Amino acid sequence: MGKKRFKQKSKFNNKEFNNKRFNKPSYSNREQEEIKELDLSEVNLSFSKKLLSVRGVIDKVIQTGGPTVFVVSDGTGTLGLKGFESPGERAYPDLNEGDTIKATVKIDEFNGELEGEIKKILKLEASEHKGFLEKILKIEKERAKVDSIPFLVKSPILTKLRDLFIKAAEEIRLAIIQKRPIIIRHHNDTDGYSAGYALERAILPLIAKEQKSEKASWEYFLRSPCAAPFYEIDDSIRDTALSLRNVAKFSNKMPLIVIADNGSSPEDLLAIKQGKVHRISFIVIDHHYSETDVISKEVLTHINPFLVGEDGAKFSAGMLCTELARLINPETQNINQIPAMAGLADRSDLTNPDTIKDYLEIAKKQGYSKELLHDISTVIDFVSAKIRFMEVREYIETVFGEPREKQKQLVELLVPYIRKLEEKALAISKSNTKTEVIGKTTLQSIDIDETFPGFGFYPKPGMVIGLTHDDLQKTKKITNLVSIGIMRTALTMRATDQANFSVHELIKFLNKKLPNAFVEGGGHKNAGSITFIPNKQKEIVLLFKEFIKTR
Amino acid sequence: MGKKRFKQKSKFNNKEFNNKRFNKPSYSNREQEEIKELDLSEVNLSFSKKLLSVRGVIDKVIQTGGPTVFVVSDGTGTLGLKGFESPGERAYPDLNEGDTIKATVKIDEFNGELEGEIKKILKLEASEHKGFLEKILKIEKERAKVDSIPFLVKSPILTKLRDLFIKAAEEIRLAIIQKRPIIIRHHNDTDGYSAGYALERAILPLIAKEQKSEKASWEYFLRSPCAAPFYEIDDSIRDTALSLRNVAKFSNKMPLIVIADNGSSPEDLLAIKQGKVHRISFIVIDHHYSETDVISKEVLTHINPFLVGEDGAKFSAGMLCTELARLINPETQNINQIPAMAGLADRSDLTNPDTIKDYLEIAKKQGYSKELLHDISTVIDFVSAKIRFMEVREYIETVFGEPREKQKQLVELLVPYIRKLEEKALAISKSNTKTEVIGKTTLQSIDIDETFPGFGFYPKPGMVIGLTHDDLQKTKKITNLVSIGIMRTALTMRATDQANFSVHELIKFLNKKLPNAFVEGGGHKNAGSITFIPNKQKEIVLLFKEFIKTR
Amino acid sequence: MGKKRFKQKSKFNNKEFNNKRFNKPSYSNREQEEIKELDLSEVNLSFSKKLLSVRGVIDKVIQTGGPTVFVVSDGTGTLGLKGFESPGERAYPDLNEGDTIKATVKIDEFNGELEGEIKKILKLEASEHKGFLEKILKIEKERAKVDSIPFLVKSPILTKLRDLFIKAAEEIRLAIIQKRPIIIRHHNDTDGYSAGYALERAILPLIAKEQKSEKASWEYFLRSPCAAPFYEIDDSIRDTALSLRNVAKFSNKMPLIVIADNGSSPEDLLAIKQGKVHRISFIVIDHHYSETDVISKEVLTHINPFLVGEDGAKFSAGMLCTELARLINPETQNINQIPAMAGLADRSDLTNPDTIKDYLEIAKKQGYSKELLHDISTVIDFVSAKIRFMEVREYIETVFGEPREKQKQLVELLVPYIRKLEEKALAISKSNTKTEVIGKTTLQSIDIDETFPGFGFYPKPGMVIGLTHDDLQKTKKITNLVSIGIMRTALTMRATDQANFSVHELIKFLNKKLPNAFVEGGGHKNAGSITFIPNKQKEIVLLFKEFIKTR
Repeated sequence: MGKKRFKQKSKFNNKEFNNKRFNKPSYSNREQEEIKELDLSEVNLSFSKKLLSVRGVIDKVIQTGGPTVFVVSDGTGTLGLKGFESPGERAYPDLNEGDTIKATVKIDEFNGELEGEIKKILKLEASEHKGFLEKILKIEKERAKVDSIPFLVKSPILTKLRDLFIKAAEEIRLAIIQKRPIIIRHHNDTDGYSAGYALERAILPLIAKEQKSEKASWEYFLRSPCAAPFYEIDDSIRDTALSLRNVAKFSNKMPLIVIADNGSSPEDLLAIKQGKVHRISFIVIDHHYSETDVISKEVLTHINPFLVGEDGAKFSAGMLCTELARLINPETQNINQIPAMAGLADRSDLTNPDTIKDYLEIAKKQGYSKELLHDISTVIDFVSAKIRFMEVREYIETVFGEPREKQKQLVELLVPYIRKLEEKALAISKSNTKTEVIGKTTLQSIDIDETFPGFGFYPKPGMVIGLTHDDLQKTKKITNLVSIGIMRTALTMRATDQANFSVHELIKFLNKKLPNAFVEGGGHKNAGSITFIPNKQKEIVLLFKEFIKTR
Repeated sequence: MGKKRFKQKSKFNNKEFNNKRFNKPSYSNREQEEIKELDLSEVNLSFSKKLLSVRGVIDKVIQTGGPTVFVVSDGTGTLGLKGFESPGERAYPDLNEGDTIKATVKIDEFNGELEGEIKKILKLEASEHKGFLEKILKIEKERAKVDSIPFLVKSPILTKLRDLFIKAAEEIRLAIIQKRPIIIRHHNDTDGYSAGYALERAILPLIAKEQKSEKASWEYFLRSPCAAPFYEIDDSIRDTALSLRNVAKFSNKMPLIVIADNGSSPEDLLAIKQGKVHRISFIVIDHHYSETDVISKEVLTHINPFLVGEDGAKFSAGMLCTELARLINPETQNINQIPAMAGLADRSDLTNPDTIKDYLEIAKKQGYSKELLHDISTVIDFVSAKIRFMEVREYIETVFGEPREKQKQLVELLVPYIRKLEEKALAISKSNTKTEVIGKTTLQSIDIDETFPGFGFYPKPGMVIGLTHDDLQKTKKITNLVSIGIMRTALTMRATDQANFSVHELIKFLNKKLPNAFVEGGGHKNAGSITFIPNKQKEIVLLFKEFIKTR
Repeated sequence: MGKKRFKQKSKFNNKEFNNKRFNKPSYSNREQEEIKELDLSEVNLSFSKKLLSVRGVIDKVIQTGGPTVFVVSDGTGTLGLKGFESPGERAYPDLNEGDTIKATVKIDEFNGELEGEIKKILKLEASEHKGFLEKILKIEKERAKVDSIPFLVKSPILTKLRDLFIKAAEEIRLAIIQKRPIIIRHHNDTDGYSAGYALERAILPLIAKEQKSEKASWEYFLRSPCAAPFYEIDDSIRDTALSLRNVAKFSNKMPLIVIADNGSSPEDLLAIKQGKVHRISFIVIDHHYSETDVISKEVLTHINPFLVGEDGAKFSAGMLCTELARLINPETQNINQIPAMAGLADRSDLTNPDTIKDYLEIAKKQGYSKELLHDISTVIDFVSAKIRFMEVREYIETVFGEPREKQKQLVELLVPYIRKLEEKALAISKSNTKTEVIGKTTLQSIDIDETFPGFGFYPKPGMVIGLTHDDLQKTKKITNLVSIGIMRTALTMRATDQANFSVHELIKFLNKKLPNAFVEGGGHKNAGSITFIPNKQKEIVLLFKEFIKTR
C-alpha cells in the first residue's frame, strides 16, 4: 500500500490524484469543503498543501526545463501557477498571456517561494473575461490614485497644471502596479538630469515594493539621456527594439515612456508615433515653448506651462518633475533640493525669482547653499559629457547626494578641476575671437573648428560660447552683444536682451535669403543653434551680420 | 531499521547504496534486472527513481555550487547526468567535454526537469570511442537530411546550384542538431537583410525545438550586419572573441558562421581563415562576382551563381537565401514575399525579369504589391542606418511583417517621412552638382564633404548619388551619364550602360597612372566606389575625367 | 505509519522532525551535545541535518523570492545562512552587510550546495564586533602572505623594488581572499598588454579557487586597456559606475584597481582620487618617468624604478608585472616568455641588454625565439587596434599562447598580412615626406591628415612615423634625424640620440614662444607627441624647426 500511496503523491500524476478522491470519499469531501476562492493577496504559506480556487489574468508564461509557469494577477496580487506536461513541454498550450483563468491549485512553496500547482484550469468565458478585466483595472486604478498633497511651493503655474499632474502621477503609478516597465528619457543637461532623477527616486522604491524584488528595479526601469535636444527617431527605435526584446525574452509588457525636459515640439512627434505603433505609451513633461501643440493628442498626459498660457522659462523641467515625483510617491527621499538647482541651471531665476527663492529656502534647509547647487550642477554637466548615453544609475545617485558625504567629496574634488578646464577654454576662446560693431550691436565670433581640438574637448562649443559671451559683458561692460561660434555646418549663438535677437526670426530670414543652405535649428529668443550645408558657411555668416543690422 | 533505510535514500551516500544491494540480494536483483540500456530519446519520467544504463558524448560540464552536471547526448537526445563529490567540487575530474561515456544512472526529476544521478560512470575505450562518435554522427547526419521540395520558382540558376543548396541546408541543420551556435553575418542593405532574415526565420524554430527551449534562440543564434561590403577581419575577430567567451563561460561549441550577400571575394579570405584557426566553420551564400574563387576551398559550402557560370546580378542573395531557408525548414512562415523585395532592391528585375515576375506573383498572393515591397525596402534601409550594427531581432521581425498589421502601420508612418528626407537630400544635391560633357558622356559631380553635413545624415552618400543619378536621367533625358560623389579619400560612382563604364577598369587605370594614390575599391560595372590618399584627390578627379574620355 | 514517516521527510516540516527527536530522547540528547562551534572551513556535508554554532561577518544579503540568504565569512571560509519570514520577505531586517553575527544553524544542502538554516542569530556586541573583525583580518592577512621565491632574473632594480613587490602581491592576494573584485587597467600596447595579461594569469586561478567557482573569474575580475597613455578621468568614472552597479545589484565590494604601464604621472592623479571617493583602492605598477611623485601617497603600493633612483627604460611594465605575477601565484603558467617580449617591444634591450638576454634565454627554453616574440608583439598591436577597449579575455589568451598551437597558427596567418599593411603605410609615407636639413639635423615631416585616410587605418600615425623614421636611418644612413607627423591639432615625433632632442624641452620652448597655442604633451627624450589648438599648426611647425636649430 505504501507504494501505491507514494504514487498518489507524485506531483505529476494528477489523474490518479483525482481518482483517489473518488475512492476515498470522506477524505475527498473534506478537501472539497476547503476549496475556498481567495484573492491572490490573501494567499500565503498557511495554505501550504491545501487546495484553493483562484482567478486571474495571465501576465507571463515561463517555460522552464521542467514545468510551465503561468504568472497570474488579479489586481490584488500575483501568483505563479505551475502546470506540467512532461519536462520542458508547454503545459496548457491554449493558455496565453492576456487570457483570464479560473484555476484550482494546490498551494506549495519551492525554495521558500509561494506557488500553486495546477489541478484544474479553465479559461473564463468571453462574457466573464471582459468583466473580470474591468474589475482588475478598477482595483488597479483605485490603487493608483494619489493623495492630494500640496506642492512644495505656491505658484499659479502649478495650480493651473494640477489636474495634469495628478493624471500623470496616476498613470505612472498604474504602470508600476501593472508591472509595465518605465523608461525615462531626458534632456542631456542639469535640468534634464534633475527631472529624470527626481522621477527615478519616486518610482524605483514603488517598483521594488510592488514586485517584492530589489532586482525588479533594473528589469522594469531605465533612465537615459537623449543625445539631441528632442526625442528623436533614433531614440524611439532603440527604445522600441529593447522593449520588444524584453517582451520576447522575458514576457515583459511594452513600456510607458516618460519624456522629461524634451518632448513638446513637433520634432518629437515622429518618434512618439513610432513608439505607439508598437503599443508604447507616452507621457511628456517639458517646459520648452512650441508654437503648435501636436503632442497632447498622442500621449497619455502632456504637462507644459505653455499649454495653460504660462511661460515655460519660469518653471524648468527639474522643478516640474520634482513636484510630480512627490505626487507619485510622497515618501520620496532627498529630492527637495533639486528644483532650486534645476531652476538656477536653466536660469528660471531671471523670469521667476520668487519661486526660485522659495525653492532655495527649501534647499537651504536640506543643507544646500546656492553655491553648492551651482557646483553640483557643474559636476552634472561634466559627468554627463563623460558618460554620454550610459545610464550609470548608481553613479548619478552619488552626484545627486546618495550618500551626501560622497557627493560632497566628489564636488570638492571635481569642481576645481572643471573650473580650470573652463578657464582654459575661455582663455583659448578669448585669444581667438573677432569683435566687430554692427549698428548698435557688438558681434563676437569664434571659429570653433579652427580654435578647439574637437571631439572630447570639455567644455563643449555651446558652453564655451556661453562663457565667452558672459565674459565680454562682464569685462567690457558691453550690454548689446551677440556671440556666435562658427562650425563647418552649424552656428551656436547667444544674445543679450538689448540685441533684440530672435533665433526663430533668424531662421526665417536665412531660409528666405538663402534657401539652398537648407537652414534648420531652434532655441530660445536669446540662445540657440542652426545647421546648414557646409559650402554655405561663409554666406550664412555674412547674412547673419545683415540680420543683426535689421534688428 | 527506519534509520538505516533513511540513510540508504541519501543522495550522496553512494557506497552505502551499493552495500545495500549486497545486503538485500532479492531487492538488488530486481533492480539489476531493470538496468536497461536506452537511447536518450527514450528516457522519460516514467523511469523516475529507476536505474538505467546510458551512453553518450559529453557536450558540456557544468560545475554548480553543488553537483557537477555532465550534459551528454547520443544523437537521439540529451540528458544531464549529476555527479557529486562535495559541494562545488568537480566530480569525476578526468571526464571532460568530448569524452564518450557509459553510465548507470538513477532517473529523477529536479523541479520537473529530467536528470540522471550517476551511480557509475566509465569512459569508453579508445576503440569504442571512435565507433560511438561515428554512430552519433551518422544518426545526426540522418536527421539533418532535407526533404526534396521544389524551389519556389523555376530557374536554370537554381537548378545548377541545387546540390550546393542541399549541402548548405544539411550543414546548417547538422549544426542545429549538434547544438553548435549559428552566427549569420550579412550585407547592410535590403538584399542583405532579406537574406539574413529568411535564414533566421528558418533556423530559430528548429533551435528552439531541438533544445526544447525558447531561450536557446538567443543563446545559440546571432544575426548581425557587416559594416563593410565584405566580411572583414574586424568582424571575424569580434565573432571569434564572442564565441571563445561563450565556450569558456557556457561550454558552448564554436559556431557555424553563415555569410550572406558577402563572402565570395578575396577580401573575405583573411577573416574566414582567422575564424578557422579557432575552429569556426563557414558557409558563404553570395551573388557578387569575383574574378577568382579563393573561398570554396576554405568553407563547408559556397553558393554563388558565378561558380556555375551564371550571372549573380540575376539572383540576389535574398532570393537565394529564401530558397535555402525553405530547404532548411519547409515550415518556415512568412518569407515567400522576400525574394521579390530583395530582387527588386538589388535590381535583379533588369537582368532577370521573368524570375522576378514569378516571385512578384507569389508576393502578391501574400498581400504584398510591388509598391508595398518597395516601401518596406525603404524602411529597411532607413532602419538599418539607425540601428547600425545592433541585431534588434524583434524590431527587424516587425519590419519584415511579424505581425503584418504593425508592419503596415510602420510603413505608413515612416515612408512619407523618409521620402521627405530623400527629397531634401536630392534638392541639396541638385543645387550643388557640376555638370560637364566629356566626349559623348555627361559627368555629374558633387563634392559630398562640402555639400552634406556628414555623420548621421540620411540618406548616405552612395544613396544620394544614386538618387541624383536617376533624377538627371529622368528630368533631362540624359542616357549617357556618369555621376560621382567626391569625398576626402573616396569616390562613389554610378554610370548608365551607354557610358560603357567599368569600376574595375577604372581602378586599373588609376593605379597605372598614379600609383602613389594607392587606389583600392570595388563594385559592379556601373556602380562602385574607390578610396585613395587624401592629397591625391584632385589628381584622381582629373584622371577620372581622362578615363571617361577613353571609354 | 507510512504516512507519518512520509511527513517526517518533508523538507519544510522541521518542527515535526524535532518532535521525532523528542520521541527518541537518546538520539536528541546526543545532538544537543553536538552544537559545536566550528570554523566555516570545517563545515561540510557530514554535519548534514545537524545543528552547529558559527560566527562570521555578513558579506552579502541576497533576497530571493523565498528565503533571505546571508553569506557570511570568518576568514577561513564562507557559508550561506538562510533566514525565512515569508516568501520574498526580508528576514532579520536589522542584519546588514558588514555586521558580525553568531548563529545556530542546521546544516543542510540544497541541490548539493551546503547551507545553514538559521535557528537563532544574534549580532555580536560592539566590543566583540571589533575584535572579531580584527581576528578575521589577521587570518586573511596571514593567508595573503607570499612565499619568498627568487625573481626570474638577477637585477639590482628588482632587488631595490623587492619590498614594494611583496606589498603589492600581498594586497592583491588579500583582495582575492576578501572577495574584492579586481580591475586591471593597462596601456594599450604590447608592453601594457603583457603587464595586464601576466597579472591576469596569476589572479584568475586564485579567484576561482577561493570562490570555488569558475564563473567567479568573470564576476570578480576585469582587465581592460586604457585609451589614453594614462588612467584618465573617463576611465575612472566608468570603472566607478560599473563597480557601484555591481555593489547595488550583486552586493559586490568596491574593487581594487591595478594600473599597469600607466599610473605614475600627475595626469593620473585626478582619476585615482575620483575612485578613492567611492572607496576604490589602487595599486600602480609603471615604468614611465615622472618628475614628481604625487601618486605614492594615494595608493596602496606604487612600483616604479624611478622611485628607487633607477631608469624605467631598463625595466618595462611587462617585465615588472611578470615578476609580480609569480609572487602573487607561484604556480602561474605560461608567462615566463612575456618579459622578453615586453622588454623588446619597449626597447629595454637598448638600455638593459643583459637582463633582456637573460629573459630571452628563459623564453627560448619555452620555445619562443626572438623572432617569434617580435611577431607575437606585432599581432598584439594589430589586434589591440581592432578590439579597441573590449576585454575579449579568451581571444587575448590565444594571442599570448593559450593554447600555443593556435597562437602559432594565428601568428602564421596574421603576420604576413600585417607586414603588408606596414609596407603599404611606409610606401605611402615615403612618397609624401618632406626632408630638409636644419643645422646638423635632418628633419623629415609628413602631413598625416593629407596623407592617410584617417580613422581605422592601420598602422596608426605614431607607428607610421616610427617606421618612416627607422627606414630613413637604415636606407640613407642618416644618424642625426628628427621625424614628425603633423596633424590638425597634434604632432607626433621621433628623434635619434645624435639630434639631442627632448620632448619636455620642446614643450617648454613652445609654451614660452606661443602661449596662445596652449601646447600640452609628453613622452620620452626621443619620442613623444604634443597637442595644440588647430589654427596655430603652421606656427608650431615653424617654431619646431627653430627649436631643432637651437639643439
